[in-house]
Amino acid sequence: MSAGQGSGLLGRRGRALLAPRVTGQVRYTDDIHLPRMLWGRIVRCPYPHARIAKIDASRALARRGVVAVITGKDMPERFGIIPWTPDEFPLALERARFVGDAVACVAAEDERLAHEAAELVDVTYERLPAATDLQGAIDRPEVGLGKGGKDNVSKEVALSFGDVDGLLAGSDVVIEGDYYYEGSAHAPIETHCAIAQHDKNGLLTVWSTTQVPHYLHRELSRVLRVSPARIRVIQPPVGGAFGGKSEPFSLEFCAAKLAMVTGRPVKILYTREEEFYAHRGRHPMRMHMKVGATREGKLTAVDAQTAIDGGAYSSFGLVTAYYSGQLLTLPAFAEGYRFSSTRYFTNKPPCGPKRGHGSVQPRFAFEVSLDKIAERLGMDPIALRRQNLVGPASTTLNGMRVTSNGIEACLDAVERSSGWKERRGKLGPGRGLGVAVSAYICGTNYAIYPNDMPQSAVQLKVDRSGVVTVFSGQSEIGQGCDTMLAVLVADELGLDLGAVRVISGDTDLAPVDLGAYSSRGTFMNGNAALHAARQVRDKLREAVAAKLEVSPKEILVTRGALVVANDPGRGVTVTEAIQLAEGRFGTLGAVGYYNTPKLGGDYRGGTIGASPAYSFTAHVAEVAVDVETGRVDVKTIWVAHDCGKALCPTLVEGQMEGSAYMGAAEALLEEHVIGADGLHQGPSLLDYRIPTSLDVPDLVSLIVESHDPEGPHGAKEAGEGPLHPSIPAIANAIYDAVGVRIDRLPFTPSRVLAALQEKARREVEDGARGGAGGAGSAGGVGSKSGAGAVVAAE
Amino acid sequence: MSAGQGSGLLGRRGRALLAPRVTGQVRYTDDIHLPRMLWGRIVRCPYPHARIAKIDASRALARRGVVAVITGKDMPERFGIIPWTPDEFPLALERARFVGDAVACVAAEDERLAHEAAELVDVTYERLPAATDLQGAIDRPEVGLGKGGKDNVSKEVALSFGDVDGLLAGSDVVIEGDYYYEGSAHAPIETHCAIAQHDKNGLLTVWSTTQVPHYLHRELSRVLRVSPARIRVIQPPVGGAFGGKSEPFSLEFCAAKLAMVTGRPVKILYTREEEFYAHRGRHPMRMHMKVGATREGKLTAVDAQTAIDGGAYSSFGLVTAYYSGQLLTLPAFAEGYRFSSTRYFTNKPPCGPKRGHGSVQPRFAFEVSLDKIAERLGMDPIALRRQNLVGPASTTLNGMRVTSNGIEACLDAVERSSGWKERRGKLGPGRGLGVAVSAYICGTNYAIYPNDMPQSAVQLKVDRSGVVTVFSGQSEIGQGCDTMLAVLVADELGLDLGAVRVISGDTDLAPVDLGAYSSRGTFMNGNAALHAARQVRDKLREAVAAKLEVSPKEILVTRGALVVANDPGRGVTVTEAIQLAEGRFGTLGAVGYYNTPKLGGDYRGGTIGASPAYSFTAHVAEVAVDVETGRVDVKTIWVAHDCGKALCPTLVEGQMEGSAYMGAAEALLEEHVIGADGLHQGPSLLDYRIPTSLDVPDLVSLIVESHDPEGPHGAKEAGEGPLHPSIPAIANAIYDAVGVRIDRLPFTPSRVLAALQEKARREVEDGARGGAGGAGSAGGVGSKSGAGAVVAAE
Repeated sequence: MSAGQGSGLLGRRGRALLAPRVTGQVRYTDDIHLPRMLWGRIVRCPYPHARIAKIDASRALARRGVVAVITGKDMPERFGIIPWTPDEFPLALERARFVGDAVACVAAEDERLAHEAAELVDVTYERLPAATDLQGAIDRPEVGLGKGGKDNVSKEVALSFGDVDGLLAGSDVVIEGDYYYEGSAHAPIETHCAIAQHDKNGLLTVWSTTQVPHYLHRELSRVLRVSPARIRVIQPPVGGAFGGKSEPFSLEFCAAKLAMVTGRPVKILYTREEEFYAHRGRHPMRMHMKVGATREGKLTAVDAQTAIDGGAYSSFGLVTAYYSGQLLTLPAFAEGYRFSSTRYFTNKPPCGPKRGHGSVQPRFAFEVSLDKIAERLGMDPIALRRQNLVGPASTTLNGMRVTSNGIEACLDAVERSSGWKERRGKLGPGRGLGVAVSAYICGTNYAIYPNDMPQSAVQLKVDRSGVVTVFSGQSEIGQGCDTMLAVLVADELGLDLGAVRVISGDTDLAPVDLGAYSSRGTFMNGNAALHAARQVRDKLREAVAAKLEVSPKEILVTRGALVVANDPGRGVTVTEAIQLAEGRFGTLGAVGYYNTPKLGGDYRGGTIGASPAYSFTAHVAEVAVDVETGRVDVKTIWVAHDCGKALCPTLVEGQMEGSAYMGAAEALLEEHVIGADGLHQGPSLLDYRIPTSLDVPDLVSLIVESHDPEGPHGAKEAGEGPLHPSIPAIANAIYDAVGVRIDRLPFTPSRVLAALQEKARREVEDGARGGAGGAGSAGGVGSKSGAGAVVAAE
Repeated sequence: MSAGQGSGLLGRRGRALLAPRVTGQVRYTDDIHLPRMLWGRIVRCPYPHARIAKIDASRALARRGVVAVITGKDMPERFGIIPWTPDEFPLALERARFVGDAVACVAAEDERLAHEAAELVDVTYERLPAATDLQGAIDRPEVGLGKGGKDNVSKEVALSFGDVDGLLAGSDVVIEGDYYYEGSAHAPIETHCAIAQHDKNGLLTVWSTTQVPHYLHRELSRVLRVSPARIRVIQPPVGGAFGGKSEPFSLEFCAAKLAMVTGRPVKILYTREEEFYAHRGRHPMRMHMKVGATREGKLTAVDAQTAIDGGAYSSFGLVTAYYSGQLLTLPAFAEGYRFSSTRYFTNKPPCGPKRGHGSVQPRFAFEVSLDKIAERLGMDPIALRRQNLVGPASTTLNGMRVTSNGIEACLDAVERSSGWKERRGKLGPGRGLGVAVSAYICGTNYAIYPNDMPQSAVQLKVDRSGVVTVFSGQSEIGQGCDTMLAVLVADELGLDLGAVRVISGDTDLAPVDLGAYSSRGTFMNGNAALHAARQVRDKLREAVAAKLEVSPKEILVTRGALVVANDPGRGVTVTEAIQLAEGRFGTLGAVGYYNTPKLGGDYRGGTIGASPAYSFTAHVAEVAVDVETGRVDVKTIWVAHDCGKALCPTLVEGQMEGSAYMGAAEALLEEHVIGADGLHQGPSLLDYRIPTSLDVPDLVSLIVESHDPEGPHGAKEAGEGPLHPSIPAIANAIYDAVGVRIDRLPFTPSRVLAALQEKARREVEDGARGGAGGAGSAGGVGSKSGAGAVVAAE
């Protein structure tokens, strides 16, 4: 195991396939224009909760150039990504459940006209009582957003491992706190877009910015009642997704239906405002967390209760409810664990998965809790974590099988690289260091819909010209999965990267892969690619061996040639080898696939999220806090990430930086807030603040390579895991810098300033009372009788 | 064996995939527009033969918007479709050899500007002596167009089988004649077009109207000195080709080079005038043919000498020279055969393959000769042919292996359908019936470049949604090969045609197929498709058998379901079967391929054209000749064609009609004539007459199904064979109608009128001399002493 840069399979060349993106040659969905194409525009409900009494489209249809208007009655079939919770109509049928809920869709000759015509659709609403925040949903069950209409509950999960109450009671220190994580949006630069065409042969083609062409394919078929054999989903390269395009959306159904109705192609492009209402971003969560430890720093038990603000529909909420508890048990954990989590429906845009789905929020609460314990015990927070690590080749207390585990090396790396030991506590006033760790899945062991088929497949076409084409159902959303596949196949077959083509994101061309979610790409699609490439490699070796009159075992695949292992001067080029093999075996090609080990119990039971492997991350953040303004300036984040084998180091670094950047942005800036009126508080990129390049802290990426026994060449994920620790590491660094705990996201200047003023007020009071206990990283070990002290920011 | 309509594999549904063509949804090459695209325009030599002394592009480059000019020096590498005769430069290097030879190419911001700028390129020529017709090339070896510059010979072939002189000497009747076949052009509605893009990753993509993406791929690599791994050739659907797009052309090299030089995409679209100069159409041939027979109508020997006008470059000429003799020996032939054929270079646009490559011209001469023999012997011309048929499961005297052979059924069919027996000789003045037969190859046993690899491959992707995608290197040029593949695969797997996608004509996406030439598509690509589909079918049957607990042998694939053979109520849908098989075997996919049996001796020797199977055709034509004007009106052509199994009857009929139509057009209208100045006599669709729908005779297509042991489901070709007999059948019908032989193409009113006048003059002379022998279909059997009488039209 090593920490550093990673050499990669082909060195640093993994970036080659990204050139079309950075040179502007990529055609995104909105770049596609089809002859006779119409523009669609969705009519949206302006109320948080309303009955649709009547829709009169006559004024719109009277407008010259308006071709069609559809309503919920045209597609009276519920959809939903989770097969057990389909609860959305493409266009609301009777009730609209949030401001922005789709109720009708117009198709017109151009985009402007479509927008104008949408204003002319007269919808008569009867307003209904609404719950526009979490507390409202809890307090007012009569709003009846839940199944059966008797409450607002979306999903409840409660699991318990070990004697939690006994362990907490026996602890030397117990930290209890409330944390609140405001929701955030994905804010991709490319908004959602879909184009549909229904041709004269009855084939429906849908181009979409989706991350999950396969699921979209299934849902289009089911909802539109069209055979899947008559549907093709094409996912052009996507300009940012981050989980926000992991589900079918109204626009795909509407574009498809309008194309079928009008016989013309139809495009729908969400405006930036619509993008914020389409949302499916990170769930707001209110977490109450109790963590116990011995005086030696051994964690005893964790008791976590979480209330989740799900928004108007189920989306991935069933999974979110599990993830909010499940993934906490790695990499450092206690002996006992109880968690209960309830997702509530609210009359707000539905929440879904965002990078680090469901687990970023409790990770914040837990890692801050650990920091508080370390402070109370007077321990180094890194040492506290080291002491409680779950090791490699082990099983967590909630039944997750851990294979490779590089967390120790990650901690070593950030400790060393940040100068933790030498610098901590010596940075001067207003500056501090904080640490946090996390673990994340490499895909899930179960598909979203139950089946025994492979989760991922790759088909290779091998051309006698020396070109190998990789057909993969994976979704290239900017994360570089196409490059990853090219690198794996090129390496296996001795090819130059330029001789490999990757065709992905097209249900007609590529075999099924379940999609770009849960960080499953490299692990699953990579394994499928290796499986395919090795079939071809075996044939090349056999053909070359026959020609050179040696055993296939003696043939070595090197860059550009297949040679005799102990006589490397004897060999043939890869292209010649392909031609020899084609002459010997017939035209070459192969299908490779990957399916997960079925571990962890019943799919519908408690371990839905169990993954074949886990990545590990440690961050140290350094901040400077301006005590006059409350402004937090994150100077540097040191990110050490165990990605298994780094197949393409450039891409791994990109993912580590992108994740840490996004975490820092959520920590400091991003805030997806819906007011009591159901309106977004700033649905634009002026008001919703994502960092510019000037706002990004220095990011030091430290690749930690482990070897996962089930990963392709030992590789694991890097796309989501490295986000998690950013937020608690910054929170902990703020405390280290200025002695205040900000337990509510984001850490805005006003919140920091208020906390500083409150701290000053208390210090005055404590001083007046002669009380003990200070801020900073130095704290005394609490006595047993001191356990249970609550530190809460609010 | 049956004559009629053919039931097809899926009934008459084979037309389904053609809908995009007839509804205007197909995007042809010229429909593609790329951002920042430049337009190229080729500067062409105005002289039939000239040395290029100097090229000065300064005036062109000074024009605003002109981006680049390239000349021969930029691509100093010869190309050519036949590996042994590369003799063309993309742009002529030192010498231009015909009016229209490419000497430079301009790239400019728009098409008009490119055309204007091409006029500003100043080329200084030194004129050279030229040979602008066949006789000139024979008479003036000093023009030196041949290899070594000492003569104008392109290729000589001479082969002899049996004691030809002895057999002719022993014949009861010998017919000797001269025939001249004027060249004709393909005149596709879509002119040649190419677009090239050289992206930032160094990948060169060339969209082209080519029929042979694989060869274009190879030649682009060789000539441009770019690794084939860095080239992708895409062949969008082609708007007519007929052999005229079977080679790389200057435009593809120029577009590619200009794209590489400028860094921008470049499109070159030939004007209609350029299309006629690019040519590569049917070779003009002057044939001297001697055919002997016994008084009983047994053919004894054939002695054929052919001079071929090849135009300025080799093109496919090596093959043409063989084909001009080789394919005559089927379906009805003699005991002895000698042929010599010499292709000459002339300072004219080079000729190449056109539908029925090389064999349409001698077929005309031979079938007219047979008509003359029948007349001389007083035999029914159908009976004469029946008497000399080469049977199924036999070998021709020049070594061609014949497998299936439905010529007898074809003759029966046209005889019956045309009312030959009842109507012939009773049609009244100026009307007549004529018959002719032919045979054609189903691809060649050898690739154009020697190799041991399959000639054709098909890769299948099988999707759990019930969609099967067929990747094929075949070139869809309107002949329907995509539909043919879909039908084969759908039938094999029990799928609806709408559940099959075909991806063809893209070197990145599809495995190698050698191209759309020599009528190889259905036979070779069809076999490859079956090979692939049967691998999948076996897995489906095994998976279903396991589920139903029976043996795989008991599972029957029916339309839409796999069922137990003796209990067809038990079964699963095809989609379920795919999912079962995917769960059992992993993701499904397969590669199928086909290679030819290596028969007929050495590739570079005498039997280059040997095919794995032969199609057979018989035509009867009915004409009305206006003796006042000489105008020939073809009333009806009855076309019986042995295509083996008719996989898609609609497409087979389309090919039969298209072939017979084209033959009739060549017989009556088309004439590709280059004047002594090297200029085309009418390079436009106003002057070059192709028939409108009003000019087309009634075509009665009679599909004759045989079962070829090597064809896919017994299928053979239908795309070229049915053209051949049209011309001699019409010629023979004219003789039957008005008693004149027109042995020179086309049968224009002026030629017919001249022949009628000549006949009248002779009759007057004969009457004056009291001579015997008349016109019409009644003729006396010549005595042995009368043998050797020459009937020559000119």
